[in-house]
Amino acid sequence: MAPHIAVVGAGLIGRAWAIVFARAGHAIRLYDPSQSALENAQAAIQQSLADLVAADLLASATETFSHIQFDDCLAKALEGARYVQECGPEQLDVKRDLYQKMEALVAPETILASSTSGISASHFSDHLAHPERCLVAHPVNPPYLIPLVEVVPTPMTSAQAVEMTMKLQRDIGQQPVLVREEIQGFVLNRLQGALLNEAMRLLHDGVISAVDLDKTVKHGLGLRWSFMGPLETIDLNAPGGICDYAERYGPLYQDIDRQRSDTAPWYPELLTTIEGELRQQVAASDLAARQQWRDQSLMALISHQRTRR
Amino acid sequence: MAPHIAVVGAGLIGRAWAIVFARAGHAIRLYDPSQSALENAQAAIQQSLADLVAADLLASATETFSHIQFDDCLAKALEGARYVQECGPEQLDVKRDLYQKMEALVAPETILASSTSGISASHFSDHLAHPERCLVAHPVNPPYLIPLVEVVPTPMTSAQAVEMTMKLQRDIGQQPVLVREEIQGFVLNRLQGALLNEAMRLLHDGVISAVDLDKTVKHGLGLRWSFMGPLETIDLNAPGGICDYAERYGPLYQDIDRQRSDTAPWYPELLTTIEGELRQQVAASDLAARQQWRDQSLMALISHQRTRR
Repeated sequence: MAPHIAVVGAGLIGRAWAIVFARAGHAIRLYDPSQSALENAQAAIQQSLADLVAADLLASATETFSHIQFDDCLAKALEGARYVQECGPEQLDVKRDLYQKMEALVAPETILASSTSGISASHFSDHLAHPERCLVAHPVNPPYLIPLVEVVPTPMTSAQAVEMTMKLQRDIGQQPVLVREEIQGFVLNRLQGALLNEAMRLLHDGVISAVDLDKTVKHGLGLRWSFMGPLETIDLNAPGGICDYAERYGPLYQDIDRQRSDTAPWYPELLTTIEGELRQQVAASDLAARQQWRDQSLMALISHQRTRR
Repeated sequence: MAPHIAVVGAGLIGRAWAIVFARAGHAIRLYDPSQSALENAQAAIQQSLADLVAADLLASATETFSHIQFDDCLAKALEGARYVQECGPEQLDVKRDLYQKMEALVAPETILASSTSGISASHFSDHLAHPERCLVAHPVNPPYLIPLVEVVPTPMTSAQAVEMTMKLQRDIGQQPVLVREEIQGFVLNRLQGALLNEAMRLLHDGVISAVDLDKTVKHGLGLRWSFMGPLETIDLNAPGGICDYAERYGPLYQDIDRQRSDTAPWYPELLTTIEGELRQQVAASDLAARQQWRDQSLMALISHQRTRR
């Protein structure tokens, strides 16, 4: 049997990973213990593929779908797999059991990559015979539209497993980055959290409205960040590059850092106020439609970016 | 004489403001005491207008250019102006002198708006007879591509001056936001600083490379932020909206906030290392070309966003 890629768990993330691997031409086995979860996944994947075709981001839904096999038997899904993308529940005990079961079904060198956003892989791989092939490959939802993947090895992970995972992700068109430590929140959520914490402080202090705060990013900061990132942005924003920039603006940013209060103000009353303001922009009954708009906007942006490459 | 808009200072920001107002059909007088600065500004504006036309973001360069009059006499530039956009040097004493001179030349109700990114307007308007028409209207460079404008009143600014400035900015197609306090860095740079400070800490701790950090934003976080902003992003990322999201992820972000070290690590050696890594991506000799790429990318993104509206 030719080596395939197994995706374990057919929830939101598992389905999306199946699409990512399948559209790159890989044979996929998508496993879930629940038959009804598999049926839901089939329908959801077909809908997503149709959306991708409609947005000119995929040539053929039928061909992509044909690469995915749906399995409710873990042994069958994993037999002969060369890479497993685990998308199980975010519970440590569940993952520990799952990894032990998975290890018994695959070759010693098969990579076991977790989609977890919050649990260090060392916590659910330290009891394995071969923990050196375990790591995190954390996607952003949905990975078939947002290409970033955070690859986070444990202290036990081999350099070879890291390199094979990075290469596989690159080969299928994702953008893997190497997070060298099992740090809480990895990198993406730490950056997001830093900005959100400052946003909450500004909202709590009444400096700006929630709607204007979003405008500050979407009509200001976020435009260049969507194609350059924050370091290249400041590197190009001073005649002498990033060191020159740091001389000009570093003191300001360090002042701001010192002005933070110690507690991040995610106060329930503040959040209720923010929510009230957001609901005036998009009513609760329109949220599902707004999510569709978001996905359409994201597809249009990705399609636009492709034309720029 | 029909009321016009005066732009004071023909540097990078002044030229860009002249384009923003002129393309909206306003008569502009662009003042600079230096004749050679005005000549440079003429050439630079013509180049920018040609770029905008080439990117399908402007119908006629000639027509837009015809709205701009270049003046080396402050009295002539300001006579009869209904709004002044000040783009002078970022030095408090220079600005204090300039505002006193400008006040003597305009009507009491003429708005005097400063492009300053770093000085509170109260510091250079408290000595005026009519400080109630002074405020900050801080653009992002270049404002003809990035529409955000931070409008920051002083404690002395009248509600009417704020409303008139917000309305004028909206009318010319910018996206003004109201910053209710004269807070250091206003809102955009505080948000940028919060993310950059966390980025510097992660780089200092060796968690990620500079290139991968930029990827984390440009292939991950920055995509949705370029059309939604951070609050709408999390509002749509949990079934029950932003309060639901805060229950799930608020604790993580507050943990991250508590993990910050007290000093923002803009260490010179760290910056040199980052710069070295960035220069491997784009050599120093290619920086000017990369800046052109950035501006072309920004124009293409804005053009793409227009087709989505």
